[in-house]
Amino acid sequence: FKGLVEAGVDYVELGYRADKAQFNVEDHGPWRFCDEADLRDVAFESEGTKISVMCDVGRTDSATFLPFDESIVSMYRIACYAKEVDKAIKLAQHAKDLGYEVCVNIMAASHVLEIELNEALAQLAETNFDAVYLVDSFGYFYSEQIHYLTDKYIKALPGKEVGIHCHNNQQLAFANTVEGIIKGINYVDGSIFGMGRAAGNCTTELLLGFLKNPKYDIAPVLDLIQKHFVVMKDELKWGYEVPYLVTGVLNKHPRSSLQYMKEDAEGTLTRSYSDFWNEFSDTENID
Amino acid sequence: FKGLVEAGVDYVELGYRADKAQFNVEDHGPWRFCDEADLRDVAFESEGTKISVMCDVGRTDSATFLPFDESIVSMYRIACYAKEVDKAIKLAQHAKDLGYEVCVNIMAASHVLEIELNEALAQLAETNFDAVYLVDSFGYFYSEQIHYLTDKYIKALPGKEVGIHCHNNQQLAFANTVEGIIKGINYVDGSIFGMGRAAGNCTTELLLGFLKNPKYDIAPVLDLIQKHFVVMKDELKWGYEVPYLVTGVLNKHPRSSLQYMKEDAEGTLTRSYSDFWNEFSDTENID
Repeated sequence: FKGLVEAGVDYVELGYRADKAQFNVEDHGPWRFCDEADLRDVAFESEGTKISVMCDVGRTDSATFLPFDESIVSMYRIACYAKEVDKAIKLAQHAKDLGYEVCVNIMAASHVLEIELNEALAQLAETNFDAVYLVDSFGYFYSEQIHYLTDKYIKALPGKEVGIHCHNNQQLAFANTVEGIIKGINYVDGSIFGMGRAAGNCTTELLLGFLKNPKYDIAPVLDLIQKHFVVMKDELKWGYEVPYLVTGVLNKHPRSSLQYMKEDAEGTLTRSYSDFWNEFSDTENID
Repeated sequence: FKGLVEAGVDYVELGYRADKAQFNVEDHGPWRFCDEADLRDVAFESEGTKISVMCDVGRTDSATFLPFDESIVSMYRIACYAKEVDKAIKLAQHAKDLGYEVCVNIMAASHVLEIELNEALAQLAETNFDAVYLVDSFGYFYSEQIHYLTDKYIKALPGKEVGIHCHNNQQLAFANTVEGIIKGINYVDGSIFGMGRAAGNCTTELLLGFLKNPKYDIAPVLDLIQKHFVVMKDELKWGYEVPYLVTGVLNKHPRSSLQYMKEDAEGTLTRSYSDFWNEFSDTENID
């Protein structure tokens, strides 16, 4: 957190606010829940850098949101599928009414029927929320779809900021984020050294290298990587791998590729990479 | 080679044709020289897949080029800096006159003065060569420069194909290759699993996943990766790393980042990542 403050990063998301009635505290680290005390343990109020927390619709107890002036949190980010947008609006409105900034992240934009996406954006346009995110959960999009969808989001959401959150299955997370910026997106997500599930995300350091605003400084993030993230990546093993490419190219949820990587690590694989590709790309006649 | 033939790849480049008077054979593997006998040892004539060999201007003995019908090689690729284009044209013309396809790769396009690039392209436009390559040797470009330069190359080279060769310092090698394709480039370079010096290159498998022509099959390349390249990457360690990002973002030759990584591997580092960044980004007053 200190390094990101030094780098001039605008928001730091520290984790999820999961519902303790649904998630066993023993089974998860503190950042699954982001209790106020834990947040204050690692973070501090800073003029340039705000704190955000993510909530999954249906997995959050909104009664845990403190009054705004009792919390170190500035923004709640509400993640939902397009079909859950009513629930997301209710939850986000609760946070907004308490005084927080809010954004809604419509996940898996590559799996949404366009008519349903249009409807979700129209509903969000009617709110007083701060931002709505274009999310490429499966790492499927390339520049042409990013351009098309960015235009759509910006046009549908006058007066709101549009954000972008990309996954790196096809090594396009940074590239697609830049395409979003070129098209007018101002809220851009990165993670240090691309850390994230499976293929990971757009890297914070590439974004800081790209953005020319002098308030940003890439150097503290580079040192964070050297001190902490190079070793963590060797242990936790996020990043580009063939199984993640397969689900990305074929626009599938990453769970099967994570399962494949698990079997590979355990030495229990019974399928080659090409078997895995063919499983997904073979299409049955379901007429 | 067999796997790439099965994948339907159009050209396989097997290595360099270096001059044995300049490079000691003992110090280099056979693929620095690509003797005809070595090429025939690993490759075979195939209807769909041709063989190419790369030559650096000034480091090749053109007397080693066999008559076309005595060689398994179909294409010579001549790499040069813009200021060496006269020498490149002489060497490429020799290969063309022997019956080979030829292309000229103007290296380090991000370091060439535009007036000198325009002159080099004008000279190449006068030749009967097959293709000219846009080469981002330092991994510096993003989409806007690729669009601009692709338009320039295509306009300057009527009747010729334009190629693109990208490095992955900023995780943009595949993205930029796709941008080149969108703008009309037809010769696109990939390497399996992105294998290449420093940050490596655009991956062959991502290209095969992107191209919709049914003659290509990604599956054999995925199995090559699983059998050979995952282990090789662990040993040889190409791919995205902070020092490569630094030289990419700052448009510098990768040699200093390779030196940094060498010191890191040997445990002799005396500079942090941020020191390395600051060394390059501090600009002296040289007015």
